[in-house]
Amino acid sequence: MTNKKNRIITLLTDFGLDDPYVAAMKGVILGINTDVKIIDISHKITSHDIIEASFVLMTSYSYFSPHTIHLVVVDPGVGSQRRAILVQTEKYFFIAPDNGVLSYPLRREKVTIAVEITKSSYFLEDRSSTFHGRDIFAPVAAWLSRGVKAQEFGPAIKDIHHIPFPPVKKLNKNTWRAEVLYVDKFGNVITNIDKGQWQQLQAESQTCSFALQIGGTQITSLADNYLQGKSQKLFALFGSSNFLEISSYCQSAARKLKARRGDTIEITFR
Amino acid sequence: MTNKKNRIITLLTDFGLDDPYVAAMKGVILGINTDVKIIDISHKITSHDIIEASFVLMTSYSYFSPHTIHLVVVDPGVGSQRRAILVQTEKYFFIAPDNGVLSYPLRREKVTIAVEITKSSYFLEDRSSTFHGRDIFAPVAAWLSRGVKAQEFGPAIKDIHHIPFPPVKKLNKNTWRAEVLYVDKFGNVITNIDKGQWQQLQAESQTCSFALQIGGTQITSLADNYLQGKSQKLFALFGSSNFLEISSYCQSAARKLKARRGDTIEITFR
Amino acid sequence: MTNKKNRIITLLTDFGLDDPYVAAMKGVILGINTDVKIIDISHKITSHDIIEASFVLMTSYSYFSPHTIHLVVVDPGVGSQRRAILVQTEKYFFIAPDNGVLSYPLRREKVTIAVEITKSSYFLEDRSSTFHGRDIFAPVAAWLSRGVKAQEFGPAIKDIHHIPFPPVKKLNKNTWRAEVLYVDKFGNVITNIDKGQWQQLQAESQTCSFALQIGGTQITSLADNYLQGKSQKLFALFGSSNFLEISSYCQSAARKLKARRGDTIEITFR
Repeated sequence: MTNKKNRIITLLTDFGLDDPYVAAMKGVILGINTDVKIIDISHKITSHDIIEASFVLMTSYSYFSPHTIHLVVVDPGVGSQRRAILVQTEKYFFIAPDNGVLSYPLRREKVTIAVEITKSSYFLEDRSSTFHGRDIFAPVAAWLSRGVKAQEFGPAIKDIHHIPFPPVKKLNKNTWRAEVLYVDKFGNVITNIDKGQWQQLQAESQTCSFALQIGGTQITSLADNYLQGKSQKLFALFGSSNFLEISSYCQSAARKLKARRGDTIEITFR
Repeated sequence: MTNKKNRIITLLTDFGLDDPYVAAMKGVILGINTDVKIIDISHKITSHDIIEASFVLMTSYSYFSPHTIHLVVVDPGVGSQRRAILVQTEKYFFIAPDNGVLSYPLRREKVTIAVEITKSSYFLEDRSSTFHGRDIFAPVAAWLSRGVKAQEFGPAIKDIHHIPFPPVKKLNKNTWRAEVLYVDKFGNVITNIDKGQWQQLQAESQTCSFALQIGGTQITSLADNYLQGKSQKLFALFGSSNFLEISSYCQSAARKLKARRGDTIEITFR
Repeated sequence: MTNKKNRIITLLTDFGLDDPYVAAMKGVILGINTDVKIIDISHKITSHDIIEASFVLMTSYSYFSPHTIHLVVVDPGVGSQRRAILVQTEKYFFIAPDNGVLSYPLRREKVTIAVEITKSSYFLEDRSSTFHGRDIFAPVAAWLSRGVKAQEFGPAIKDIHHIPFPPVKKLNKNTWRAEVLYVDKFGNVITNIDKGQWQQLQAESQTCSFALQIGGTQITSLADNYLQGKSQKLFALFGSSNFLEISSYCQSAARKLKARRGDTIEITFR
């Protein structure tokens, strides 16, 4: 992890795009490291929604080069006792409030070191108690991108706050209960079952044939791509994040199903 | 077309800004070429609206430097048999699904070579069937920006899918039928008549005086700029894309007219 | 002000993110200076809202490095006689229509030179009368970023158009009238009282205890951060821009109060 040339800092926040909050963070970062590239992951996370942010990060962080610094500021506890943390894994760096927002990506990463960010000499001098994104997280990310070691920012910690990933539950012999993880802009309803798990359930049930129930609607076809599902009102497919999605060709499956995160789905193989 | 330094890749999609889809594409691009500049044209194209995307690209692509790579992903047929294409013109490169989305800009460009993108060694190794923007288009654009020749990506093709530009039709001696091409954020109603064509209609009719009818409303004044039209409820002017627009000073003409793309406009010179 | 390396141009407009207007400006800028970094402050200013833009710029411009060029295009008078101006201060450059949009940031800056932008050799050759952002402001900012001196762009001026900052008014011995300056995405209601002024009012009234009235609602508690205010339906605090805000933990104070810019607030120390 020595190549500090061409470092990338990604930003994921719930700040929206109307206000100048994201811009202030970028100004701070470029003031410390003019050579870094800043890429927006999203700033339209639902205000204070840690789980949504965790999902969005999980499905995008790994498309960035090794050494990329992923900075997440979804921070309802800003200014309080919640810790600010820096987590280094074998490939990436993550900086965030310690509120669980890193939980989903960290399931897939091997942590090499985690520190609590305490070294205030790396912070902005004038600090507010309401905008640590600008005053603490942004300058820390920028200094990190300049090659400062993770250990320099504070003491090592072991107990990162963790939010469990929602499990797929076995209800009976051939039936499982899954749930909606995320609804995207196209209205695709993304579930918590990934492709590997699906194949395992199929193997266990010794059949490929399935019926999926969500809010009174039954879905029985699995398409390879959206166009292939065109003849069906609703169909399932494995989306780009490798999770089972419920979709509708050129229409919003979520609107048809009135589906929202947390809604339950029952899948029976038969 | 040899200067690969300082290459620019522009992105035009219907992915929206909530989800991390655009960010994943940027991560992939920067992983292949850290020196390229990525500029967003828009990600707020109406889902699957190829015509809207084609108009938006037509009115912006030419403001970029020669050698810029314009990447468009509005792709309702993703994963199906529709081709992915790379079109090189005298000044630019365009990469898109072959669904007609390049039609409007290509009316103004001289194509030097067009290829079907088939060479999978330039794609991501793990490919989904639902997100070619990330898995095929982004890496191809990045490799192109590193200097790989267009011909390397697949076989030459001649039959690019084409969507005709809506014509202005002559109804009788002095009357023409035009239509609404686009409504912008300010509510300007942009038509398919450009300045040259307007001058030609004027010359043919031997008068500058006109009446424009749209949805029961008549407009008879042509302003030079928005402020000049201030005293009129609605007025026409030639906008920044060189098309005739119907506007209202500091208000939305589209809302007043309930105008939408495809609405017809009758113009009589008299 | 000689270091032209790594110059930054920020953009603040009311163009929105749907249309390709911002992209066209970026294309023009990068065509003149490929090395400049372009950072979006916001493009979601309410259409033609000069005061909102001035506030947003005031709360973000100073987080950028010295020599940054701040380009603002909120321009209801585009194409008319309103001037285009370039203002150099001890630390920054500002380019904007001369309609008052720079008023709030310039309260905090020491102007060294202001010029009317008239030198058309720095403009795009083909110019519309409706999009000076692309045709005049963008190329001027780009040439400035390449080291052209402010004086080169036109004659010096002294009479920049000025919009007064709304004052806090004394109503009687211990009561002041303030107003709402801005409502952010989280629903924080930002007022025109800054921290220094608040402390002065406190000192004058010889008490820290206060009651704040806004639209029939009374607020009496001042929190250090959002979490601290959790037990209150509504509370005041000093936000990241150093102004007094009215907030609600993880909820929109603006929605609860139906508050909008310009609404009055009465504060009594007692």
